[in-house]
Order: sequence, then structure tokens, then C-alpha cells
Amino acid sequence: MNKYMAVIEYDGTGFNGFQTQPEGTRTVQQELTDVLSNILNSPIDLGYAGRTDAGVHARGQVIDFITEKDLDLYRFKWSLNNVLPDDISVRTMEKVGLGFNSRRDARIREYIYRIANTDYHSVFLKKYSILVNRKLDLESMKEAAGLFIGKHDFAPFASPSISGEYTERQVFAFELGIKDEGLLEFTVRANSFLYNMVRIMIGTILEIGRGERQMGQIEKALEKVEGNFSSSMAPAKGLTLNKVEY
Amino acid sequence: MNKYMAVIEYDGTGFNGFQTQPEGTRTVQQELTDVLSNILNSPIDLGYAGRTDAGVHARGQVIDFITEKDLDLYRFKWSLNNVLPDDISVRTMEKVGLGFNSRRDARIREYIYRIANTDYHSVFLKKYSILVNRKLDLESMKEAAGLFIGKHDFAPFASPSISGEYTERQVFAFELGIKDEGLLEFTVRANSFLYNMVRIMIGTILEIGRGERQMGQIEKALEKVEGNFSSSMAPAKGLTLNKVEY
Repeated sequence: MNKYMAVIEYDGTGFNGFQTQPEGTRTVQQELTDVLSNILNSPIDLGYAGRTDAGVHARGQVIDFITEKDLDLYRFKWSLNNVLPDDISVRTMEKVGLGFNSRRDARIREYIYRIANTDYHSVFLKKYSILVNRKLDLESMKEAAGLFIGKHDFAPFASPSISGEYTERQVFAFELGIKDEGLLEFTVRANSFLYNMVRIMIGTILEIGRGERQMGQIEKALEKVEGNFSSSMAPAKGLTLNKVEY
Repeated sequence: MNKYMAVIEYDGTGFNGFQTQPEGTRTVQQELTDVLSNILNSPIDLGYAGRTDAGVHARGQVIDFITEKDLDLYRFKWSLNNVLPDDISVRTMEKVGLGFNSRRDARIREYIYRIANTDYHSVFLKKYSILVNRKLDLESMKEAAGLFIGKHDFAPFASPSISGEYTERQVFAFELGIKDEGLLEFTVRANSFLYNMVRIMIGTILEIGRGERQMGQIEKALEKVEGNFSSSMAPAKGLTLNKVEY
């Protein structure tokens, strides 16, 4: 038995999320499972670092699988990329110990959220960013992002569907980079994220940037002083799983 | 009468080039002409800085048109972007004198050619670069690019279809930038380019990079010592018209 891990990319536009769905809609996990099972001539069970929602992209999702075959990784990656659809690519592959688990062993997950703060949406960014055509208070947005850093109960910043789960997470960094022509890139790193947590934090930061919410409300929600914190959730297409560190 | 110019972007993947074709296939010029004539409620005649071939992209193509209407440019650009298909965007618009001509008045055209020199083709670069999965001699490629700088008769580096045209052009700069993870970006600036000239120069530089051609052959062709110089032409999808300067 051999276990392999691969770092993969996908353009989330054409997928109904990462995870295989019972109703058989197109997902990244299903495409990968089908192609790998086919090439390896035996059904495989695909592990992965993190589920991503419909429309969310990845530069550095990590997957793993076990096979009886001893693979020539350079050739195998090349064939795999030739067979996979255009919106999935394998960046790197390596052999790992049988005990390796993409999800459990991940120490840090890094996401990037892109906002085109311009008066037109660039053809080259439309699928990978949201357009916000108004002046934003960038200094306040940076400050708001900073409030999330640290170990907190992030339940107020997650989808209500998670109730019952352990909701403490540690955010290591949350930074705003300003690129050419008003492209804002938020990079956030944490041990792991609750369901919809990045999109809800970004939605909240956008509310701050538009002057529709006060900074103190984030602090109170993180200190559990205020129970019902309802924020808007930023759209999926601005989000990219950038990397996973082990 | 009012004349306006606009800087536009397009993803060339879905177009049969910029210029309107008699057989009515989908082109950028046709889409723009249709949308503008429709919004302005009167047929317009579209001027443009440069034709681009099927599959070639643009970040900074320039167009111009005349209309009787006095436009509120901020609003007009917003409406235009709402009506245009997803693969064309208007970046900026301004009013110009009636004598302005996008093509004739352009002083410098800048193109970028992207080569993914990696062992996989990134999902996010597939449409905008070519994949070259082998070691290239980058120093020789830089040197080869440098040979094109200056005023030369570029006939050996143009499509044979142009015979009879004036073929002297001035290349002001031709540089290689190396981006993250092996993405090579050639940026070339000239007063204007002959038909297919950028793609033939890049094809030649790639031959140098693979050790399939000698540097001296470029020099001889530029000095018109060697008549029949036949080079491979790099594929359209790696090419982007980056900007036009006036």
C-alpha cells in the first residue's frame, strides 16, 4: 500500500463545491475520484484538507489517496493533468506515510478574499473577485481584520448550521494587501475555519468599510457580550483557498 | 458632434479576433459596435488602435467613436459595462478632439507574452499563457529579445501575407520578467508591429531557448543578409495587448 498527497488548484466557477453531493452534481471531489479511480484501475477513497463551497476557488487544496501501485510521480502527474478537466490542475505530488491525513494533520489554512474596489470589473478578475464600486474606509477595514486575530469563539461568525460543534479557532494573521488599480486582497490564516467563517468575517469588514457597522460590535461579538450578531456574508467567487501548511 | 475614446479589455478566448468579419463570426469590434449603436440609438463607426488576432487578449486596447450625444461619461461607462458581454470591459473613457484617431495617433504599443515554464499548467493561467514543460536557456532568450531592439526592417519576422507594405518598425524595449513559479513574461514596446510580428519574434526566442536556433541567424535576418528566415509562430493565447500610448 502507498499513500500519496497532491496539491491541487481549481476554478470553482463550474463546480457545485468541493465535496461529492448525493444528487450527483458536478463537484471537484467527484471529478478527482472518478479520474484517479479510472487511471489507477481501482476505486479510491479521496481525503482532503478542507471543503470549499460552490463558487470558491483553490490554489492550494490538498488531497490524499491510497493505492497498491507504486507511482512514478512525474509521469503520473503529467497524465493526470492531461486527463483532468481544464478547471482542475495538479501542482505537486508526493508520497507520504500511511498515517498522513490531509484534514487532521493540517496546521494552517490560508484563504485570500479579493475585492475589486473600482468603477468597472476587469474581465480578468470577474470570476475571482467581487466588485465594490464605492469608496471604502480601508484603514478601518484593516483595523477590523486585526480584531479577529487570536484565539476566540467564532460562533457569531459562522453559519448557524454548525450549532453543537466546537467553535473556538485561532486566527494567526489577517492582512489587507492593496494591489494595482484598487484590487484589495485580504489574506487570513488560521488553524482551521468554521463553516462560512471567512465569508462572514469579510462581509462584516465590508460593512465596517461602508460605515454601516461599528468596530465595537465585532469586539463584543468576539467577547460573547452580544449574542445575536447577524452579518452579511460576502459572495463565494471572491474566495480562494490559497494554501494548507503541515 | 462629440468624439470619445475608451480603453477596453477583453478575454480573446471566445472571439474570432478583434476585427469585424464579413461572415459574421463573433468579434470584439462587432460586439462593441452593436452595443454602442444600440445604446446611442444610431449606427456608430468604431475606430481602434490595433487589430488583434483570434485568441489574443487585451488589457489596454483603445477605441474611438463619434456621436451627436453629449455623454455623462461616468454613467455611460457604467451602463456600457452592464450591457457588454462578460468577456469585454471598459476601463476608462474620455472625450477627445474630433481629429483624434486611435490608430494613427498611437505612438507606442505594448504587448505582453506569457510562457508558463512549469511542469503543469495552472488553472488560472491556462487561457492566458502557453505551457513549455522543459528547461529553457533564459539568459540566451533575454539576449535574443535584446537583438530586436532598434529600428529594423522586420519583414523576416512578419506574416508573408503583408508583402508590399512598408516593413520598417522601431522596437523600443523587449524585456523578460520572471514571475512566481516559473511564469515568464516578455514585454515588448514598439511604434507599431507588423502582422504576427510579436508571435514570430517570441517563436524565434523560444527556438533560441530550446537551443534549436543560433543567435547569429536573428542578427543576419535583421541585417537582411539572410533572406528566407522561417520561424515558428507562438500561439495566440499567450499574447495580450497591454497598452497603447499617445
